[in-house]
Amino acid sequence: MIARTPEPPYVAVIFTSLRPVAEDGYGEIAERMVQLAQTQAGYLGHESVRQADGWGITVSYWADEDAARAWKANAEHREVQRLGREQFYLAYAMRMAVVARQTSFEATP
Amino acid sequence: MIARTPEPPYVAVIFTSLRPVAEDGYGEIAERMVQLAQTQAGYLGHESVRQADGWGITVSYWADEDAARAWKANAEHREVQRLGREQFYLAYAMRMAVVARQTSFEATP
Repeated sequence: MIARTPEPPYVAVIFTSLRPVAEDGYGEIAERMVQLAQTQAGYLGHESVRQADGWGITVSYWADEDAARAWKANAEHREVQRLGREQFYLAYAMRMAVVARQTSFEATP
Repeated sequence: MIARTPEPPYVAVIFTSLRPVAEDGYGEIAERMVQLAQTQAGYLGHESVRQADGWGITVSYWADEDAARAWKANAEHREVQRLGREQFYLAYAMRMAVVARQTSFEATP
């Protein structure tokens, strides 16, 4: 689940969202978007969490700002962004950020 | 839940973690850390999600890198970081990033 990102700098797109709990086809579309993102130039990985009350945070990692922008502009992704505003999300915030430092930890079993 | 952040640039600290589902006093300590963070200079807000399988993402927002570093170096916070490695987390990644752009959306009721 933790993305294996390279040494910084690289780009993180932080997407915080609230969606209704209703089953509405979102799961399949989200899965398709993950598959599509993985084929894009500069895709480095992503981490995604959603809790039972509908709040979620997804962070996708990109080689640079151009790669993140190209993903935002992808035609199929743009259509899903529109669906998101019309159907899936009650609210969201998107932030594009340049990662400067990273550390990680794994417990010894 | 969505943090009301100012115009960029500002700093985001992305903390992705896995913890066991067991009840272990984590909730109270996490709540205390939120309260403590809110008293720190340069604290802008935070967003936090944890799903049922134990994976969580917390993003805290800070006025600048100095403010984020000062929070990391806070004595009480450092003690809790140690506890986190010893008791609470099976794995985590922490990334410090400078936010360059943000957008947000709220559905009309």
